[in-house]
Amino acid sequence: MIRSGETICAPATAMGGAIAIVRISGSESLSICEKIFFPSDKNIKLTDQKGFTILFGEIRSGEEVVDEVLLSVFRSPHSYTGENAAEISCHASPYIVKKILELLINNGAVSASPGEFTQRAFMNGRIDLSQAEAVADVIASTTRAAHKVAVNQMRGGFSDEISRLRFELLNFASLIELELDFGEEDVEFADRNDLKSIILRIKDLADRLTNSFSLGNVVKNGIPVVIIGKPNSGKSTLLNALLNEEKAIVSDIPGTTRDTIEDTITIDGLAYRFIDTAGLRDTEDVIESLGIKKTHEKILQASVILLVDEISDSPESVNKRIGAIREMITESGKRLIIIINKCDKSQPGQKEGLINEIILNDDENLLFISAKEKSGLEELRVALAEDVIKEKLNTDDTIITNIRHYEALLHVSESLDRVLTGLDNKIPEDLIAIDIRQAIHYLGEITGQITSDEILGNIFKNFCIGK
Amino acid sequence: MIRSGETICAPATAMGGAIAIVRISGSESLSICEKIFFPSDKNIKLTDQKGFTILFGEIRSGEEVVDEVLLSVFRSPHSYTGENAAEISCHASPYIVKKILELLINNGAVSASPGEFTQRAFMNGRIDLSQAEAVADVIASTTRAAHKVAVNQMRGGFSDEISRLRFELLNFASLIELELDFGEEDVEFADRNDLKSIILRIKDLADRLTNSFSLGNVVKNGIPVVIIGKPNSGKSTLLNALLNEEKAIVSDIPGTTRDTIEDTITIDGLAYRFIDTAGLRDTEDVIESLGIKKTHEKILQASVILLVDEISDSPESVNKRIGAIREMITESGKRLIIIINKCDKSQPGQKEGLINEIILNDDENLLFISAKEKSGLEELRVALAEDVIKEKLNTDDTIITNIRHYEALLHVSESLDRVLTGLDNKIPEDLIAIDIRQAIHYLGEITGQITSDEILGNIFKNFCIGK
Repeated sequence: MIRSGETICAPATAMGGAIAIVRISGSESLSICEKIFFPSDKNIKLTDQKGFTILFGEIRSGEEVVDEVLLSVFRSPHSYTGENAAEISCHASPYIVKKILELLINNGAVSASPGEFTQRAFMNGRIDLSQAEAVADVIASTTRAAHKVAVNQMRGGFSDEISRLRFELLNFASLIELELDFGEEDVEFADRNDLKSIILRIKDLADRLTNSFSLGNVVKNGIPVVIIGKPNSGKSTLLNALLNEEKAIVSDIPGTTRDTIEDTITIDGLAYRFIDTAGLRDTEDVIESLGIKKTHEKILQASVILLVDEISDSPESVNKRIGAIREMITESGKRLIIIINKCDKSQPGQKEGLINEIILNDDENLLFISAKEKSGLEELRVALAEDVIKEKLNTDDTIITNIRHYEALLHVSESLDRVLTGLDNKIPEDLIAIDIRQAIHYLGEITGQITSDEILGNIFKNFCIGK
Repeated sequence: MIRSGETICAPATAMGGAIAIVRISGSESLSICEKIFFPSDKNIKLTDQKGFTILFGEIRSGEEVVDEVLLSVFRSPHSYTGENAAEISCHASPYIVKKILELLINNGAVSASPGEFTQRAFMNGRIDLSQAEAVADVIASTTRAAHKVAVNQMRGGFSDEISRLRFELLNFASLIELELDFGEEDVEFADRNDLKSIILRIKDLADRLTNSFSLGNVVKNGIPVVIIGKPNSGKSTLLNALLNEEKAIVSDIPGTTRDTIEDTITIDGLAYRFIDTAGLRDTEDVIESLGIKKTHEKILQASVILLVDEISDSPESVNKRIGAIREMITESGKRLIIIINKCDKSQPGQKEGLINEIILNDDENLLFISAKEKSGLEELRVALAEDVIKEKLNTDDTIITNIRHYEALLHVSESLDRVLTGLDNKIPEDLIAIDIRQAIHYLGEITGQITSDEILGNIFKNFCIGK
């Protein structure tokens, strides 16, 4: 549902904490606030205030003082939504937040839908659609890499370039369609070489971006890691040791603990997400074994495979397991790290035996740890961080993380392939024009120049209330 | 630890939501922010800005843009703490909040302790101690009654009057001490009638306030309710029905659900807190029975007793249980509500039989419900709301809710009793002066004119970070 006439309100902060923010946007924002907000300086009239100013005063419900608050004033078009807007900063009591929302609604505002503030920013041309989508990614970002990609996209990122190229393509489409109007006459308004050149530039960008998607996915959702190994090799102890260490690291600044993010560790700004850990969490390897089918499934999902063996294992048995796993790694880019656990119980010669007889491929690691005594974990973190993804990330290439963009760009590339083939084979202009229009359509979907209620609905329903 | 030279920072909002606020206070607030905040209008210099203005710009860590934010500027003494202060309103990502705090700390700020902003507001004379304490109560308030009492106290409430009366008493103390300086001479600077009058006024206030404490306690923590009854009478079904209904009521405005508050329902702005429900929660009355000792303990803790019987019970057995409970209600002010459950299985004549043969006292209720079919719950809510506490609450009398104030006021009253007795018995001025000084001391403890690091430490350690 898209509505712009009404003034919307919503809590913008989570319950808890010291301060809560109630957000209001719409043409009547200030006049509605004026009915419930009374500035401590009685000479001040709220609706006369300039944008980007703060007023101190009381929210009142009849005679009753609900709270002493700060009210921030924003004036169209200089606000997040582009509309008149206000933010009420109150004490973070559930009762107060609810009461302020009730008062606003009783005075003419309506409850905002999820993402409705950002949707209005988009509708009012403050940001394009890919920027709007990035806002949700920025809020959800918990690692440096995910944050960097999301902030880059929020600040324009690739969508500026797409908009520009789309505009150029649109000009060519118009010229070609003009040629069609001249029917039988053999006129050529659109220079074919220039057209080819712009198409190649767009295709190059689209291909670069679609190629970045698997990386973007990893950045956004974390690098999938599996832990496999025979029963009782200490897989759950290793998992718990890594996660507990992480918990200690992320909670070093008060108020910023991340209790909700489970089974994920962050190394060098990148998340490593342990997948399929249900069987590992509570019990020590009761069910898990190196069954071929199960292991194969896990390896399919993972980018990094941690094989956990024991210091007392024979080199032959370790080599056998390594060989079995290598055969399952059909796709390139997956890494195998062999972890020899229980080194606290190491006997003389065991370690040397394993080092001498285990033959590693180039991109494999062999580590000796004791999960129980938490030794060797730092080496494991270093080994994980060596991931090739890291290098790609440190370049400033634009990365896409959104499957909607990925799919639209694939369509763009396909349409343009057809245009190129068509130009080479001199097929009729009207058919070429259709494919160009299709590419233009999909480019427009990314930035939101082409959109539908359904697309918007899907995008904004996943936003939180108040954004 | 009280420190005022340093500039403090902390997150002021809970994790989650759309917007997060990072708060900064101290003389260097703006100069520290200037190192990491870059206004979008390059002509603007942050440290030149007036208070109560908002700037839009970027937080940067070196070359990297951390977020686009709004920065609110406050200038001493016109801020919450009375110091220079700033609030950074950023996207509510855990990574961003943590990064901004890190940047502030790296540029000279220190992490704020719990309640340190409010403690500074107190130390800088912006609010007195009882107002500072009320800030935490305002944030914690979840009902209209608790909120009203807390806001009243935050806005000065009784502490203005206490300050004024204390000042008058202080004048008398000085005069009496002056008399002592004149030793053997029989001078009387302090008019004894005026002294008596001010003492009676203070004693009256102190007694009124201490008497309000039991009410204040109920307002702040909820009215304690117990559910008792024989096994299988449907106590847990009743509890769940009431709590589920409550859940539906409080979650009618998006974002304001109160998942954390358990076993509490709100009626007419007052909380009713079901106590000792552990045995009722999951299983249907397996262990519970009307054992005398256990029931007695429950009744001791409660203000309202819900006795759950069944429609199939004989009037004699119900009367017997009512009689047993009445004997246990030794204290006045406790109410008994008799609930006849399972009325969905009512047989002809059962209800009439119970109505005719159960003899109620004036302040008792008899209700017929079906917890299973959720019928009669509204009548139960109405009966609960008839509580006498309601009437007392609707007056505008000041209510204290804080045990520290209660204890201090008891001491005040005791000291003044001794002064009055002393005056009547013409005991020496030096002894009277000691008791007056003691009353002055305890009055000062309430408002914070007399305080110690230990008292302050105890008060502010219970605050949240960022307040």
